[in-house]
Amino acid sequence: MNPILTDRKGSVSEIGESALIARIKAALGEATPPTPRGMGDDCAVVEPRANLITCDSVVHMKHFDDEADPELVGAKLLKRNLSDIAAMGGVPCDAVVALFAPPLLSAEWVERFAKGLAKCALDYSVAIVGGDVAECPTLAASLTLTGRARRPLTRGTANAGDILCVTGPLGGSIRGHHLTFTPRLEQGLFLSMNGAITACMDLSDGLAKDAPALAGESLAAVLDIADIPPSQEALELTEGDPEKLAQSVLCDGEDYELLFAVRAEGIDAFEDDWIARFGAPFFRIGRLAARGDGPGLIDSATGKAPANAHGYEHLR
Amino acid sequence: MNPILTDRKGSVSEIGESALIARIKAALGEATPPTPRGMGDDCAVVEPRANLITCDSVVHMKHFDDEADPELVGAKLLKRNLSDIAAMGGVPCDAVVALFAPPLLSAEWVERFAKGLAKCALDYSVAIVGGDVAECPTLAASLTLTGRARRPLTRGTANAGDILCVTGPLGGSIRGHHLTFTPRLEQGLFLSMNGAITACMDLSDGLAKDAPALAGESLAAVLDIADIPPSQEALELTEGDPEKLAQSVLCDGEDYELLFAVRAEGIDAFEDDWIARFGAPFFRIGRLAARGDGPGLIDSATGKAPANAHGYEHLR
Repeated sequence: MNPILTDRKGSVSEIGESALIARIKAALGEATPPTPRGMGDDCAVVEPRANLITCDSVVHMKHFDDEADPELVGAKLLKRNLSDIAAMGGVPCDAVVALFAPPLLSAEWVERFAKGLAKCALDYSVAIVGGDVAECPTLAASLTLTGRARRPLTRGTANAGDILCVTGPLGGSIRGHHLTFTPRLEQGLFLSMNGAITACMDLSDGLAKDAPALAGESLAAVLDIADIPPSQEALELTEGDPEKLAQSVLCDGEDYELLFAVRAEGIDAFEDDWIARFGAPFFRIGRLAARGDGPGLIDSATGKAPANAHGYEHLR
Repeated sequence: MNPILTDRKGSVSEIGESALIARIKAALGEATPPTPRGMGDDCAVVEPRANLITCDSVVHMKHFDDEADPELVGAKLLKRNLSDIAAMGGVPCDAVVALFAPPLLSAEWVERFAKGLAKCALDYSVAIVGGDVAECPTLAASLTLTGRARRPLTRGTANAGDILCVTGPLGGSIRGHHLTFTPRLEQGLFLSMNGAITACMDLSDGLAKDAPALAGESLAAVLDIADIPPSQEALELTEGDPEKLAQSVLCDGEDYELLFAVRAEGIDAFEDDWIARFGAPFFRIGRLAARGDGPGLIDSATGKAPANAHGYEHLR
């Protein structure tokens, strides 16, 4: 639905901040605990247990359009952050939400957004403990999520020779996956408990940009591009053109699969454990190598940087 | 300075996200710790000690205009949150920042904003541990701050008969106090350590809206309006008109003083301790009384709700 109305009737400015917050609180239901843990005071009072914190945003006409269900937008805002917690091998804890609301924003849109956020929060045992509403010409929201990881998985901590893997197929998220994806929390937690895993991150800006970020400054990501699993949507969008398909799996953003590095000597045993746990394999897509003065991303078929490979560079 | 440029030269879209984040990181300097505690991974890894979390935002042309120094805007964003931590009697810990950046946003503006944020963060021992940059037609930012309080001060926990007090003069913040205020962290911490204090909050929406929020549903805030200390700016703006002055101290927002309730039998001893600690008094401005079916705010001179008293209702 179009979040912005053409007149004040049913808008957030008609009902005012206090009524809007009451409606949000009602829509959040059991996803927001009672004060002082939840909404209603200057701060939320939470259990001191979180050692992870992350923050992500959605902007109208940038991360969602008028066709998107408000419930899916609310869920997406949380899932983007859940994917960051998954990437660190964590379990999510508490969230606060900042809503930027134009005066003619539909109160019904906000209510449906909050309901979608709440359902997702309950699904993943996240408490929505507070937030802020600010008047703003553009509809946008940011969410900060805390989490807990016993052994946080990080970037830039892998070694030359480690195998690069992804949890699922890539590319073509524009077809809807960017809204409907499942954050890989169980996979991240499983990865964090295995000593053969040396680094992990989630794929949000495209493999071509994210793989060098995982590798860090001293390593290069050497990709076997033909081994990268394409999504059904990527296959459809590129109509069998192998160059376009390679570009789709390398450059499309918002896959929200995990990219991780595994010690070569431990990967077979780890793969058996993985299949026993999840009933399906992960995908080996390349390896890490000493970088020297070369590029951070290498096509193993040519030994050079892949042609036309770029990640999603925001603001450009 | 005007944050929005008229062409791409020097804009965030010219330099791109990666270079912008590098400039922000450089501007933050020692206020952002090294990875994994600071920027650079999917989440920041922090010490699990925080039991408070709060979130506040600033929007261009709403909370600051083109005349405002970017450094002061960055500091204001953090100080609004620090004031919330102060209101709960806490010590601040870690912050994440979401920046909403129009393509023509001046990179210099962002750098100065980050420097002001960093200076304030260092002043109050806050670590800026991460954040997010999203493209957005409107310039805005939200900050989430964690904190630690041994005994969190809350709203709605005072009793009938408790004395209402404020830490400083009110009104007229539009003259500049809304940017230059000092969050009352030392005062909040001192309040939290004294058992005579039964409730506390910070004044951001104006006493007329905030005092009933402190009182809660079963109590009324009975104000001795003549005892409310006016700021120099409120005195100047209202030019000696007593009705306008009463409205200014009751209704102007963004005072960022603390409003707190003290048990009547403990207030004299507490006041002595306070003066010994801070070298200046706080201000008694009324008391709490059983509410019944009456209004949540009462002028003690008339026994009725004050005329024309409203707090700042956002979105209206």
